[in-house]
Amino acid sequence: MRWTTKDLASLERRYRGNLINSIGGYKSLHLLGTMSPQGNHNLATFSSYFHIGADPALCGIVIRPAENAENTFGNILNTKHYTLNHVLPSFYEKAHQCSAKYPAGVSEFEAVALTPQFINEIKAPFVGESRIKMACEFVQKTDIVLNDTTIVIGRIIYLEAPDDCLMEDGSIDLNAAETVTCSGLDTYHVARLLGKLPYAKIVK
Amino acid sequence: MRWTTKDLASLERRYRGNLINSIGGYKSLHLLGTMSPQGNHNLATFSSYFHIGADPALCGIVIRPAENAENTFGNILNTKHYTLNHVLPSFYEKAHQCSAKYPAGVSEFEAVALTPQFINEIKAPFVGESRIKMACEFVQKTDIVLNDTTIVIGRIIYLEAPDDCLMEDGSIDLNAAETVTCSGLDTYHVARLLGKLPYAKIVK
Repeated sequence: MRWTTKDLASLERRYRGNLINSIGGYKSLHLLGTMSPQGNHNLATFSSYFHIGADPALCGIVIRPAENAENTFGNILNTKHYTLNHVLPSFYEKAHQCSAKYPAGVSEFEAVALTPQFINEIKAPFVGESRIKMACEFVQKTDIVLNDTTIVIGRIIYLEAPDDCLMEDGSIDLNAAETVTCSGLDTYHVARLLGKLPYAKIVK
Repeated sequence: MRWTTKDLASLERRYRGNLINSIGGYKSLHLLGTMSPQGNHNLATFSSYFHIGADPALCGIVIRPAENAENTFGNILNTKHYTLNHVLPSFYEKAHQCSAKYPAGVSEFEAVALTPQFINEIKAPFVGESRIKMACEFVQKTDIVLNDTTIVIGRIIYLEAPDDCLMEDGSIDLNAAETVTCSGLDTYHVARLLGKLPYAKIVK
């Protein structure tokens, strides 16, 4: 099947959403934890994480800001901190449930029965059940006026991974960590290694 | 293992690169095709694709601009077009080889033996061997001054996917398409379905 710009514009809204959201390929899946100034916990499903650089360690996410300040975006701007937690097959259904539109002030941790965990001075809750955990400090945001979304860039200030998933060269073995990947808005997968290749050089 | 900001700063450069690049989770993998004003073809390995929205259909990639204008970034700014092509297990080693630093003017298509393909009026080559193909028109760019990278946002103007991978709701079955996902800078995977879940609603 082929679609041009005109074809895409004529598609039914949900059909187009499913198509565009899934055709980009497998995505990183994270549970993003924040805390409001009132101390309420928030946990949201994110699949827009992207790597920006390793030194300084920077990453991005795409957020659709809402009016109420007590949500992921408002909490990040208030506390400057957020956590990113990998999802395991044992709780991917709970992770999906965190994408439901709970009212402000309701803790998704409580609603889906996941455990908030606090580490060091980080002002956002981690997911206790996750094996790979990251925390970020807000750096900058860029508004995408074309569709009212915002790219939030953060600096990685904390990382945690199981010792048995850390390889000699610093790489994380995501297969061993049982990290879940997702596609579209509702589909979850695990992965199997094809190969880890040597640094690509020009063959003379 | 746990790393704080201070720990990350003290890591050996390549070790830190491998760690930060892989700990974010599985990434979308694309071969990005462009053409120079001179008509030279360029094909580059990208793992920073992220979804921004479906209406209009927008996506982002992260680029490290180089000085020479005849590269991915220069070509996108010149022609305004680029293609994104999924990688199959049958040619993931060729896709990795496209990350080697070939001189400007050298076609990675020729160097790794992949087939440039032109469709409609799109001024960039697709990968003939790919089953899922996308083309984008340049929309805007945002410089990340902290590490000299640039986020390039494009509007999707063409999509192609095999009929047997298109589901009733518009979703693409990436397992059936045999789309390859990657982690870090050098590791490639295929995925297996855990589950496709219904829209998450609040349980009363």
